[in-house]
Amino acid sequence: MAGNRAVAYKGPGTVEVIDTDYPTFELKDGPGVNPANVGRKVPHGAILRTVATNICGSDQHMVRGRTTAPANLVLGHEITGEVVEVGPGVEFIKVGDLVSVPFNISCGRCRNCKERKTGICLNVNPDRPGSAYGYVDMGGWVGGQAEFVLVPYADWNLLKFPDKDQALEKIMDLTMLSDIFPTGFHGAVTAGVGVGSTVYVAGAGPVGLAAATSALLLGAAAVIVGDMNEDRLAQARSFGCETVDLTKGDPAEQIDQILGVPEVDCAVDAVGFEAKGHGHGAEEAPATVLNSLMDITAAGGAMGIPGLYVTGDPGAADEAAQKGSLSLSLGTGWAKSLSFTTGQCPVMKYNHGLMQAILHDRVHIADNVNAKAISLEDAPRGYKEFDAGSATKYVLNPNGYLDGAAAA
Amino acid sequence: MAGNRAVAYKGPGTVEVIDTDYPTFELKDGPGVNPANVGRKVPHGAILRTVATNICGSDQHMVRGRTTAPANLVLGHEITGEVVEVGPGVEFIKVGDLVSVPFNISCGRCRNCKERKTGICLNVNPDRPGSAYGYVDMGGWVGGQAEFVLVPYADWNLLKFPDKDQALEKIMDLTMLSDIFPTGFHGAVTAGVGVGSTVYVAGAGPVGLAAATSALLLGAAAVIVGDMNEDRLAQARSFGCETVDLTKGDPAEQIDQILGVPEVDCAVDAVGFEAKGHGHGAEEAPATVLNSLMDITAAGGAMGIPGLYVTGDPGAADEAAQKGSLSLSLGTGWAKSLSFTTGQCPVMKYNHGLMQAILHDRVHIADNVNAKAISLEDAPRGYKEFDAGSATKYVLNPNGYLDGAAAA
Amino acid sequence: MAGNRAVAYKGPGTVEVIDTDYPTFELKDGPGVNPANVGRKVPHGAILRTVATNICGSDQHMVRGRTTAPANLVLGHEITGEVVEVGPGVEFIKVGDLVSVPFNISCGRCRNCKERKTGICLNVNPDRPGSAYGYVDMGGWVGGQAEFVLVPYADWNLLKFPDKDQALEKIMDLTMLSDIFPTGFHGAVTAGVGVGSTVYVAGAGPVGLAAATSALLLGAAAVIVGDMNEDRLAQARSFGCETVDLTKGDPAEQIDQILGVPEVDCAVDAVGFEAKGHGHGAEEAPATVLNSLMDITAAGGAMGIPGLYVTGDPGAADEAAQKGSLSLSLGTGWAKSLSFTTGQCPVMKYNHGLMQAILHDRVHIADNVNAKAISLEDAPRGYKEFDAGSATKYVLNPNGYLDGAAAA
Amino acid sequence: MAGNRAVAYKGPGTVEVIDTDYPTFELKDGPGVNPANVGRKVPHGAILRTVATNICGSDQHMVRGRTTAPANLVLGHEITGEVVEVGPGVEFIKVGDLVSVPFNISCGRCRNCKERKTGICLNVNPDRPGSAYGYVDMGGWVGGQAEFVLVPYADWNLLKFPDKDQALEKIMDLTMLSDIFPTGFHGAVTAGVGVGSTVYVAGAGPVGLAAATSALLLGAAAVIVGDMNEDRLAQARSFGCETVDLTKGDPAEQIDQILGVPEVDCAVDAVGFEAKGHGHGAEEAPATVLNSLMDITAAGGAMGIPGLYVTGDPGAADEAAQKGSLSLSLGTGWAKSLSFTTGQCPVMKYNHGLMQAILHDRVHIADNVNAKAISLEDAPRGYKEFDAGSATKYVLNPNGYLDGAAAA
Repeated sequence: MAGNRAVAYKGPGTVEVIDTDYPTFELKDGPGVNPANVGRKVPHGAILRTVATNICGSDQHMVRGRTTAPANLVLGHEITGEVVEVGPGVEFIKVGDLVSVPFNISCGRCRNCKERKTGICLNVNPDRPGSAYGYVDMGGWVGGQAEFVLVPYADWNLLKFPDKDQALEKIMDLTMLSDIFPTGFHGAVTAGVGVGSTVYVAGAGPVGLAAATSALLLGAAAVIVGDMNEDRLAQARSFGCETVDLTKGDPAEQIDQILGVPEVDCAVDAVGFEAKGHGHGAEEAPATVLNSLMDITAAGGAMGIPGLYVTGDPGAADEAAQKGSLSLSLGTGWAKSLSFTTGQCPVMKYNHGLMQAILHDRVHIADNVNAKAISLEDAPRGYKEFDAGSATKYVLNPNGYLDGAAAA
Repeated sequence: MAGNRAVAYKGPGTVEVIDTDYPTFELKDGPGVNPANVGRKVPHGAILRTVATNICGSDQHMVRGRTTAPANLVLGHEITGEVVEVGPGVEFIKVGDLVSVPFNISCGRCRNCKERKTGICLNVNPDRPGSAYGYVDMGGWVGGQAEFVLVPYADWNLLKFPDKDQALEKIMDLTMLSDIFPTGFHGAVTAGVGVGSTVYVAGAGPVGLAAATSALLLGAAAVIVGDMNEDRLAQARSFGCETVDLTKGDPAEQIDQILGVPEVDCAVDAVGFEAKGHGHGAEEAPATVLNSLMDITAAGGAMGIPGLYVTGDPGAADEAAQKGSLSLSLGTGWAKSLSFTTGQCPVMKYNHGLMQAILHDRVHIADNVNAKAISLEDAPRGYKEFDAGSATKYVLNPNGYLDGAAAA
Repeated sequence: MAGNRAVAYKGPGTVEVIDTDYPTFELKDGPGVNPANVGRKVPHGAILRTVATNICGSDQHMVRGRTTAPANLVLGHEITGEVVEVGPGVEFIKVGDLVSVPFNISCGRCRNCKERKTGICLNVNPDRPGSAYGYVDMGGWVGGQAEFVLVPYADWNLLKFPDKDQALEKIMDLTMLSDIFPTGFHGAVTAGVGVGSTVYVAGAGPVGLAAATSALLLGAAAVIVGDMNEDRLAQARSFGCETVDLTKGDPAEQIDQILGVPEVDCAVDAVGFEAKGHGHGAEEAPATVLNSLMDITAAGGAMGIPGLYVTGDPGAADEAAQKGSLSLSLGTGWAKSLSFTTGQCPVMKYNHGLMQAILHDRVHIADNVNAKAISLEDAPRGYKEFDAGSATKYVLNPNGYLDGAAAA
Repeated sequence: MAGNRAVAYKGPGTVEVIDTDYPTFELKDGPGVNPANVGRKVPHGAILRTVATNICGSDQHMVRGRTTAPANLVLGHEITGEVVEVGPGVEFIKVGDLVSVPFNISCGRCRNCKERKTGICLNVNPDRPGSAYGYVDMGGWVGGQAEFVLVPYADWNLLKFPDKDQALEKIMDLTMLSDIFPTGFHGAVTAGVGVGSTVYVAGAGPVGLAAATSALLLGAAAVIVGDMNEDRLAQARSFGCETVDLTKGDPAEQIDQILGVPEVDCAVDAVGFEAKGHGHGAEEAPATVLNSLMDITAAGGAMGIPGLYVTGDPGAADEAAQKGSLSLSLGTGWAKSLSFTTGQCPVMKYNHGLMQAILHDRVHIADNVNAKAISLEDAPRGYKEFDAGSATKYVLNPNGYLDGAAAA
């Protein structure tokens, strides 16, 4: 019980697995910890032995050096675990519970939490509303790509799986509840997806595939996924989506070939600020996805934007983008009466229902995103392959719980 | 252009196929026509050659003699057809279009229609809001279990299938858009069904099976259907539902065995006022279903009530029920903060989306309700078998369009 | 810090102010305390010095002897107070804060609380979802018609007023946030009240007047309140409502005289199970209000039912009502596609917004319900006068905070 | 009955009242009429004698020469009238009815109309979804700043006032139902305004004042209006708004002084693409309003954007804006989880409720926007004064109906 091992950011392009401290019920100083959070007591917290913890596309923003993340920041906000200790203020969560951790940390006591807006909790990040584990400028809560991790406000944050054995059988699916499945689902819901909708999802990475899965679960008639990576598009086709190959140009014409009209009812941006232009060899062009979606969304439609847009991006190609400004054809959107929803997914709004859908075998998210368990020590390889465009969702297995889980 | 053949109610227990008039663009006097509607001009109407027209459970209320329906009333409110003539006021619907007709007739001009409440249109039934084809006390619009039928306000009411050939291939599914699929869907929606819900549907007749289908399409985690008819329960199991055999008693215990709790999130009453008590040999007991659903719906849940409840039922077992009064345990519902939605489904709210789901092969409603095409002349046999509890949805085929359709 | 004084139920028709214990951070045994709650630790609780605590119509059900409330049960679930002590698990609420207490106790940790359904919290009442202070069969949390009271889960439950001085100036309004203002608001919201609606509120007691106030705040075009008590009707007229005198018969005709049609868009039942028939000298008839509302609600409308209906009422006039069964004309409701929402108001969904409306002087709920501050020792008189039909909302003043507040 | 007089655009900066044709039930060729609409038969139309027709800010875009509007285009999309003739296809609207005309023309037959999205009707503008009277690139339907005007699909489009005399008494209020009142209301609704909200409205022109009025009607706690025109700000203060003088800089600091926080829950952009930067002597800067609103809207808030943004603006200050591109700080919005709703208001969704609120004396929109009746011949003066920043809503009075109406 002495130590801990964790994946840490070391500098642009590099992550390493390092020795680090076993968590205690206090947020101690360390890389990226907000000074105002140093020393914060966490009697309401639980310590988890990590069962599964996934590498996320938004981790890559840090690893690519596109942020101000400090060296030795412990990464990881997609966490599923078994409770090994609870603080004195924990009443309902028990040692031994198997739980999913929403990536957005929230207090369950502020006005936003009471309104289910847990993605913008007012009490966990001293800088601004909203927080996450293992993420730059998010308060400094230590990441969960580790053997052990501390979760504050455990009674509020944790989603307990009702049956441990059943959960372990479906653990590769359930691990997606911490982030990408609800995030993709939020994208689909805020894009207005309902029974019979036609849907376009920009981006066939894990969040895009989760959005496509969600759209189908919500009863969409047709789900079209666009990307420039053929492996990822093949993954989308594997579970019933149509696809658009963006190396061949803008999506409108290809959508027309599929649907008979060049438009969809609903659109999801699962790409975000590191978007590239369409066509072969396209350059980074952060407004491309949003402008393209305004073109192909039918009048009266909606756009869900779970893809991350940042307030500042020092590594951006042009000056406007460095300040987080995008050149958007809002006139096009206005003429069509479009609406737009941005921001982090409030995971707690969706994770119970999605858990139920998984446990009752109504959706197979692990297959759809091609989840693959690898050891904690293999995390650096996972980051590299994922960054290179592998059509795989890497799930770290720090404590052997996943040894029996079907690998992709 | 000479004549027409149609299914008519002749008296309790009897329907016959009779010779009748080919429709004109005027509502003429006849059995069941509201005097205030006699002579009403219908320049906005279309005459359809019937492609498919289904026997509905609510037709049986009339045929069993539980209503004041007059002899020779032409039956049929579930209509799919090909347009053969349009009135001078029709602008967008064209001769040759293949269309679905919502069973509730609506004008597209009153406040309720403008608010999408087409089940309670103010302008088509002189007696009160709401109307339907071939139904007692609904204004007197002639039924569509016939070779030809008039549809008023055609530009508003008709849902055109985008591709005729494609539609004919899926015609046994599409014919369910006129009533039972949207009606079951409305039941599920108003019961609050969403992704991950647990759902109980009371009644495994066609509307119950459509509600169960809809619940799955909406992403329900588990759908449980209760009935006393084993054939109908088997039909429910055929597409992934769990079932409860009500001859064995109240549903709570059996639900507990399935879900681990004796409660569901959402409940649909697809039975209505002709409900029977539970257990073997149960008598008619009109409040049974609603009281039972209040028992098994979890606190905070909702009940969708597409099953018909009437204002007067001369054939009811007791005096209160004859006046349409039910002895309801409202206290139970109140303690659980339940909500209840009653009434006809506003078909136009849902039929476009459900059509899209059918055309894109996302749902197989014809299989799920065990649709079976029979000739118009065979209608009397269809009514009898359906009334005897056959697990079949009978689809009449007055003009041969369904000759190639897969029979159940 | 030694003792406490509180209003207790002594037996049918009688309340007394008694000496009782100062609260501790544990739920101790006592009259009406659920055995499973005895000894429950409350480190997450706060002890309040009561600023204002109101007598509620639902207290009267107990005092009239219509329930199984035991003698010496301390009453009071409408509580506003100043925090004098906090438990070790309280993080954000501070000693000195001036706070409103939602009458429904909730944990902020269960699935229902996370979904904002705080009226049916799963963790505070061992018998069933939902709880309240000082109420029979609600878990046994000690009532707040007292000098001091314990509030569990203080960070979650308490609504802090942003400015103490400003709050004290509007304290007679703010005290209505604990129950009747949100309860009336919930009735209006679930009745579908919006800008331009016509609304009928059954019952001109404090909840009815709060529902009428809420309807106006929501932008209703016309609000009509019905009662048999002329003083209470005059109170409704004082802030812009129309009224219907039910001693003169059913409301439809009087509504017709006011609106030109005998129907409204939205209806609120602010009476509940102790309803009486209409007309002079009417007897108790528990289904009267609901059946009457189904008559006068226009097709497509909705009914909000904040009025309490119970599962068992030993004191009821007839056998069915004793079991909580009501003879409802559901057929009438069904033909009109009505919907119904029952249950306790989830106060936390509304109290922040209503507080803002009060603090910015947009609504004057204290005037509208004719709030009147009386001393704690005068509580027995308040109960009597209220039961006798006084058009007054009695606010107890146990600690002198209200000495300067305008009396009605 | 031979002729007609109408306000026509003559060229940048100039309008004139000209002689023109009395309408017939056909859309004839003329300035700005879409070739595909020439000769379109309108048997479903009604001819109105104009009772009131208002000058709108969006007319000014054309008059300033910022569009491709051709000379002699007859202006006017805010129309209230008395029916003088109906086409043969009109069934419910009668000669003599006093009616409000929604500025967006819609057919009541297409999918969007059936879904209440009448701002993007598919059948009235051959170029793209959405249409309006007297507006460039909107199909060519003749404007209503005239003595007489044709309204197509009269049964669908027209809102009949229930009582003619009562309506004429409130005609200066009711004339705002054709556009600015619903448009402002839509802005408030899509900004999420509810009971207790704090709201910022950018722009104190008529739409901004209508949005502020709407926010109050919806129960907002505090409504703050920002502009650089002191007369218009005074107008906002006249009915209970707070104001921000943008000549003194960005709004955040002034909002902080009013509310104690530099943020609001909800924001409305009632300015659009001709926005100017803040501060004295500011230049046109089309993204200013939207970027500023992202700054001052609290996390989790919403922005309603009824202000017009165009796809191309040849007169814009810079090249990007000429193509309709705006440099938006979307990262700021994303970090706060904001949502955005753009586009024309679907008037028919709101006009009935707002009419009810006016007729029951719950809102005084004419006073709030400082409505002033002037003669048709005075229209050129009205355009000039309005363009110069007069805090007045000009209502043209072509047929003397407003002679007795209170002038502002």
